[in-house]
Amino acid sequence: MSFLLKSTPERAKVWKPLFNKALPDLAFHVWPETGNPEEVRFLAVWEPPANLLTYFPNLEVIFSVGAGVDQFDLSAIPEHVTIIRMIEPGLTDGMVDYILWATLTLHRDGLTYINQQKQHIWKARPNLVAAQRRVGIMGLGTLGAPVAQALASNGFTCSGWSRSRHEVPNVTCYAGPEELDAFLAITDILICLLPLTNATRGMLNADLFKKLPQGAQLINAARGAHLVIPDLLEMLENGHLSAAILDVTDPEPLPADSLLWDNPRILITPHIASSSQTETAGHVLLDTVERYLAGERTFSSRVDRSKGY
Amino acid sequence: MSFLLKSTPERAKVWKPLFNKALPDLAFHVWPETGNPEEVRFLAVWEPPANLLTYFPNLEVIFSVGAGVDQFDLSAIPEHVTIIRMIEPGLTDGMVDYILWATLTLHRDGLTYINQQKQHIWKARPNLVAAQRRVGIMGLGTLGAPVAQALASNGFTCSGWSRSRHEVPNVTCYAGPEELDAFLAITDILICLLPLTNATRGMLNADLFKKLPQGAQLINAARGAHLVIPDLLEMLENGHLSAAILDVTDPEPLPADSLLWDNPRILITPHIASSSQTETAGHVLLDTVERYLAGERTFSSRVDRSKGY
Repeated sequence: MSFLLKSTPERAKVWKPLFNKALPDLAFHVWPETGNPEEVRFLAVWEPPANLLTYFPNLEVIFSVGAGVDQFDLSAIPEHVTIIRMIEPGLTDGMVDYILWATLTLHRDGLTYINQQKQHIWKARPNLVAAQRRVGIMGLGTLGAPVAQALASNGFTCSGWSRSRHEVPNVTCYAGPEELDAFLAITDILICLLPLTNATRGMLNADLFKKLPQGAQLINAARGAHLVIPDLLEMLENGHLSAAILDVTDPEPLPADSLLWDNPRILITPHIASSSQTETAGHVLLDTVERYLAGERTFSSRVDRSKGY
Repeated sequence: MSFLLKSTPERAKVWKPLFNKALPDLAFHVWPETGNPEEVRFLAVWEPPANLLTYFPNLEVIFSVGAGVDQFDLSAIPEHVTIIRMIEPGLTDGMVDYILWATLTLHRDGLTYINQQKQHIWKARPNLVAAQRRVGIMGLGTLGAPVAQALASNGFTCSGWSRSRHEVPNVTCYAGPEELDAFLAITDILICLLPLTNATRGMLNADLFKKLPQGAQLINAARGAHLVIPDLLEMLENGHLSAAILDVTDPEPLPADSLLWDNPRILITPHIASSSQTETAGHVLLDTVERYLAGERTFSSRVDRSKGY
């Protein structure tokens, strides 16, 4: 029985000794070295190799090293293989920092001041206090819920929307398609943290933007494919939206000739909102494998194939 | 007996009816209309008129409409006139938002990504979690203490330094000149919120910067005259400091030909960190006047002339 890691050298360097010490009987291989492929029961990976089961016929669990599994072709992974996402505290903390930063940047007119600095212009705009700013988070899962709580505890008036009903302290929670319009109508800063599924692809489009208040702002730290870029550019051009911060694009890296780069109302960061922290992620992975080996099959990080996340 | 306001029309519009309703016997004048100058007992102002007592021989209290009084020439204000600074919750909340934003911007390499966007470069840098970032606040008064607490509660490793000893929960507090070096040695992001006095003018200079760790970063949201600009430019050039966010400059507005504008390691905002919120400041002012009229003479916002703030 073996564990195969196909990821960065940095992770391999930390995770291999961790697994070897805790589970000396489980061989730990680092791609491209695989040992006997028939012995591979566990695979941790960002993008799985093609023909997964042809290579590893006895694979039981596939782990994503990130929070999302949209990079997996779920239909190409046999039903009997368990799929587990990465949910670890480092990933959550990074996302909380990033969204708090991005929200404060929009709240305090950061893009205006960046543009004014380029032109050597010293001109103050009036400040709102955080409570006067209504932020709305789409997606209230393992990332969205702590993000919403952090925004609320820093004084923002905070609401959230998700597919199924969630309760988050100090956050007004909306759920399902029938409550989406009411959520959008009271959202000055819209934050997308949705999983990417067939139901959410292209959801950040002109129809949705029109339901936001005049002058609303957007943060997308989910997946580039949530956003219809021409619709965003049109809404910034006609002034219905006033600014956007994008950490994800489709494709990535963003091509050098993309119109997004030079738009003064858009701030781009190169998919840095959050990534698994090697140390904490290693311990979460090990803990999950140990529980699996002990017979446990229910994990909050287990992917529900019917939902796609 | 009268109250004279020399400030913005916006404040006059809100404060005059507030005072008229609560204190109908106190005439409320809005500069340049002063009524009988001999009746003026209270003056609320950013910059006082010259020859103060020649104009208003019976002046008892002068209020700054901002948190600082460095715009006052204290030596020109007779000893018997009480000087009171503006300490109000809106001013504090704004500063907390601003410093949290600026700290997160430096923590998450915001300047690097702004520069990369200009060049259409998509390149991620590794993330630290907030606990790995040591922030240090100079000045732990009515603005610095809540700022330090907000940074600590958002996960940063937080210390503070002030002239006299303060205690702030979850913040390691240093005090006095003899503890300054120890504070600087463990500060990755230095935040200046000091009052401007003869003792602090020019304090952000090369000698101080050299005591910070290699690659440290600076936020100045106090007064422009705290900073020796050529020293900052030298330290950014030689790499000892890696970035700075400046909300204040000397002079203001920052001249269009200043070298600060185009330095890629400097982010400029036009003195917008915080300002009194008209509503809350009006109530604080009214409350202080009412207490003064009732005979109270001890106010936490009263300026100690020996300290200069």
